[in-house]
Amino acid sequence: MELTVYLAGEIHSNWRQELKEKAEVLGIPLNFVGPMENHDRSDFIGEEILGEQPNAIYRDETASKINNFRTQILMRKSDVVIALFGEKYKQWNTAMDASAAVALDKPLIVIRPENLHHPLKELSNKANVTVETVDQAVKVLAYIFDEK
Amino acid sequence: MELTVYLAGEIHSNWRQELKEKAEVLGIPLNFVGPMENHDRSDFIGEEILGEQPNAIYRDETASKINNFRTQILMRKSDVVIALFGEKYKQWNTAMDASAAVALDKPLIVIRPENLHHPLKELSNKANVTVETVDQAVKVLAYIFDEK
Amino acid sequence: MELTVYLAGEIHSNWRQELKEKAEVLGIPLNFVGPMENHDRSDFIGEEILGEQPNAIYRDETASKINNFRTQILMRKSDVVIALFGEKYKQWNTAMDASAAVALDKPLIVIRPENLHHPLKELSNKANVTVETVDQAVKVLAYIFDEK
Amino acid sequence: MELTVYLAGEIHSNWRQELKEKAEVLGIPLNFVGPMENHDRSDFIGEEILGEQPNAIYRDETASKINNFRTQILMRKSDVVIALFGEKYKQWNTAMDASAAVALDKPLIVIRPENLHHPLKELSNKANVTVETVDQAVKVLAYIFDEK
Amino acid sequence: MELTVYLAGEIHSNWRQELKEKAEVLGIPLNFVGPMENHDRSDFIGEEILGEQPNAIYRDETASKINNFRTQILMRKSDVVIALFGEKYKQWNTAMDASAAVALDKPLIVIRPENLHHPLKELSNKANVTVETVDQAVKVLAYIFDEK
Amino acid sequence: MELTVYLAGEIHSNWRQELKEKAEVLGIPLNFVGPMENHDRSDFIGEEILGEQPNAIYRDETASKINNFRTQILMRKSDVVIALFGEKYKQWNTAMDASAAVALDKPLIVIRPENLHHPLKELSNKANVTVETVDQAVKVLAYIFDEK
Amino acid sequence: MELTVYLAGEIHSNWRQELKEKAEVLGIPLNFVGPMENHDRSDFIGEEILGEQPNAIYRDETASKINNFRTQILMRKSDVVIALFGEKYKQWNTAMDASAAVALDKPLIVIRPENLHHPLKELSNKANVTVETVDQAVKVLAYIFDEK
Amino acid sequence: MELTVYLAGEIHSNWRQELKEKAEVLGIPLNFVGPMENHDRSDFIGEEILGEQPNAIYRDETASKINNFRTQILMRKSDVVIALFGEKYKQWNTAMDASAAVALDKPLIVIRPENLHHPLKELSNKANVTVETVDQAVKVLAYIFDEK
Repeated sequence: MELTVYLAGEIHSNWRQELKEKAEVLGIPLNFVGPMENHDRSDFIGEEILGEQPNAIYRDETASKINNFRTQILMRKSDVVIALFGEKYKQWNTAMDASAAVALDKPLIVIRPENLHHPLKELSNKANVTVETVDQAVKVLAYIFDEK
Repeated sequence: MELTVYLAGEIHSNWRQELKEKAEVLGIPLNFVGPMENHDRSDFIGEEILGEQPNAIYRDETASKINNFRTQILMRKSDVVIALFGEKYKQWNTAMDASAAVALDKPLIVIRPENLHHPLKELSNKANVTVETVDQAVKVLAYIFDEK
Repeated sequence: MELTVYLAGEIHSNWRQELKEKAEVLGIPLNFVGPMENHDRSDFIGEEILGEQPNAIYRDETASKINNFRTQILMRKSDVVIALFGEKYKQWNTAMDASAAVALDKPLIVIRPENLHHPLKELSNKANVTVETVDQAVKVLAYIFDEK
Repeated sequence: MELTVYLAGEIHSNWRQELKEKAEVLGIPLNFVGPMENHDRSDFIGEEILGEQPNAIYRDETASKINNFRTQILMRKSDVVIALFGEKYKQWNTAMDASAAVALDKPLIVIRPENLHHPLKELSNKANVTVETVDQAVKVLAYIFDEK
Repeated sequence: MELTVYLAGEIHSNWRQELKEKAEVLGIPLNFVGPMENHDRSDFIGEEILGEQPNAIYRDETASKINNFRTQILMRKSDVVIALFGEKYKQWNTAMDASAAVALDKPLIVIRPENLHHPLKELSNKANVTVETVDQAVKVLAYIFDEK
Repeated sequence: MELTVYLAGEIHSNWRQELKEKAEVLGIPLNFVGPMENHDRSDFIGEEILGEQPNAIYRDETASKINNFRTQILMRKSDVVIALFGEKYKQWNTAMDASAAVALDKPLIVIRPENLHHPLKELSNKANVTVETVDQAVKVLAYIFDEK
Repeated sequence: MELTVYLAGEIHSNWRQELKEKAEVLGIPLNFVGPMENHDRSDFIGEEILGEQPNAIYRDETASKINNFRTQILMRKSDVVIALFGEKYKQWNTAMDASAAVALDKPLIVIRPENLHHPLKELSNKANVTVETVDQAVKVLAYIFDEK
Repeated sequence: MELTVYLAGEIHSNWRQELKEKAEVLGIPLNFVGPMENHDRSDFIGEEILGEQPNAIYRDETASKINNFRTQILMRKSDVVIALFGEKYKQWNTAMDASAAVALDKPLIVIRPENLHHPLKELSNKANVTVETVDQAVKVLAYIFDEK
């Protein structure tokens, strides 16, 4: 049995790479999917495909359509969602993806630094598990397959 | 036909009062529900009912359980959700409520200042309508009942 | 027991008025809801609330957001959907509303002139009942309440 | 991960072939399904299997039953739906398929010439992405699999 | 709290009247809905509204469309479904309604004479309760409201 | 793409074998599942596994539990359901399976001799397609995969 | 806005009465429903309506059918479920009702003495809120309606 | 066709091993999944991954989060659920898993010693089949695949 894991959250650090490597070391049978990690491409994908837009708001609107299209497809294919919140940025689309996962009955792990516990308290309560490090998230994934 | 509207979002300003008054002036047949607006009570409701907790994280956990319980009941009773994002704060629970509304097929209006268009672009795309002011949100609600 | 009926379809003729009057004559306990019937207001509602848009496509986009918001709320409140197709116009949003009704398990009556039977054949097959006149649709509604 | 794409819409042009070839050139791992593209067979499939019908309306009814049966099976198997609207024809079954895709939570791309923006505005708003060419649709599909 | 009960099943005897009267004697707060009980009207409702059909099969087809339309609306409004099977007739639409009730998560009581236990065994197993008389069915309904 | 077909209906004739052979001749990529076809074993499976029961009704009850368990699993795995009604027997579990298929959004073909059109009219109307012979049902299945 | 609360759990103590009285003192607009509280009647309701059964297991089977029928109806009508676990008894039907509430997206409060925390840990984690006393449960209910 | 079976219930005996071996002897094409069977690890998995907790209740809370995460994933992957109740222990999480299976429309077999029939009567009634031994459960599984 292989599971597919959607990795929602910030695209400014290499946490996805770290998580994939640690999962591989442990031999956990997982596939990973997630958002476009090239930040500029993610922001300009609307204009890249549909041409120049009248202003910044419409550039954002066309980009978000295509990013949400990608996320909807890949999240539907996933068995588990992991959402990582970092120290910086608004990260409202991460919160949106995490909440959608819960509503779709997809098990959810939240990764956040301890000092974000207060603003994330309602989302943590909806998640199955909240951890502080990528390492802990990998251990939770490994536990699915452990027999002893 | 009366509709019930859940008002998600910041509890530090009086936008709910403003919205209710403007809806009343227009005679729109609406009921309003929403989160506990007393910030301190919302943060300490866990300890208020369940007693002192071992530390700040567990205080947050018990409070969020009861706040999420309230939100789940009231959102299920609602026909429309309005989520307001202000300039300050993380507001991840607002994003969480807005995303849950979409997943539950509840029509959603997002209110946000124009300068937040970039971090909210994916959520705006999932909302039915995004506006900048409470006044505009009320006009959208009024349109449901207009015949001409 | 009162039923709510959503009247989807063209807004250039007075078929809704005719249907309501015939239902009233028969004393059928029905409430009626439907789209904005003022065509100009329906087309310009986006700019009316959100201000001037960069071009005709974006004017349409903002209007359609608010029209779809209205339709989603009212269709969720409905027990039955009636979709009328006339001789003119593309009427793709009528087909869209009719198909959404089927997918939401809302019973659907299609009203169309006989000569449209070919282009509407797949939609007619998904509808519960296809009739040719408003009068026939009212008789189908009356039958719900008849006991003999 | 391979995705299955349902290609709804007109069967009088070779747009499906064009789309499949462009997807193959880009090496996107996609399977394609869709309606019967032989127009005559699609119209007469009811009589082909069930024998002669009393009149044209019943010929249409039997054909539409079998065409809807095929569409229901194949759309359930699909991860994405693309609906193309051309300049001609009523295309109400295309609108019906597109709307069913949205209601089933299947991500939807609409392809339409720019000059159809007005009659398709509500459907475009429900779609994830609206484009004007097959080429643009293929780029949206490719973006699902891009990592950079 | 009032409950609505859909009474599916044969329309050749007066079991619905008997059941309603016994419920009224016990003062149980119930509303009753059900199919058209005038057998001829039920069989000819298609031609009554849509005009003469080419043959008996098409007469049945148009009648069944309107009868199913009625049943779908009334069953959606119901909290409980009771399906009575008599000694005579095929009663496949009764079995169809009973099975639809189970699939829609509507609690189901089956009434059947003891000697039909074998052909109804799979349906009885899906029902919540199987009884032999109208009197027993009324007692099951009364039990919902009993406190002691 | 392979499809799984559940074959509901009478187990006293060899129609399943005929259907499988005709599908194989046409090279249609189908898997077939269905109920236990050994009539005696189907009736006594409860006592075979759980031991002797107090009377015929309880023998039926234990058998139906295990038969419904099998059907629920196999129908969930199916893409299409075919329900055959013969001249004899009550066949209420066939009607039950057919109705459950419709409620679960599984495409349904009904096979019945022409003279049963009246008692099956409501179920035929809910089915996607009604045919009279196994041969016609196979042609409908073949059409799913035809491209021209 | 009035809410309906299903009170699952032991029927050997008067906790329901205590909870109702405390809610009334606080003026919370609640209706309460729940299982048959007369233990003997609950155990013998099958034989009361359907007559003597062959043995104790079948007596239990007929009683549980009617008790589950009642619970399914009343829980579907409820906005909130409260499940109380006491010191004694297996209480597996209480755990069953609580789990069904979660699966049906009904908000759930668990009441249990502190010393049962270990065997109830997985259920507590699925509940919205776990408390130790009826008094605390009433305070959680009151908080839904508090504005300050 | 291979089926996946989730084995819920006590982890103090070797019933899972017995069931797997008997299924293998019969050559039934089944995969088995289930909870962590190492009792100590199951109780301490929260602290193992997230570090020491303030007290026993919070140790249970963190463990149950991770155990429920595992169960949610594996039960979603399963076609059948088997829940075994033994003579000892509260086993409320077994009842919770069994009830969740029913609510998710997963076919359910309950295994319990005869003398537990009374406290399990409501859950047995919701299960598809209740048996007394592992051997009987294996025979029910084998019957899914039997053709004669």
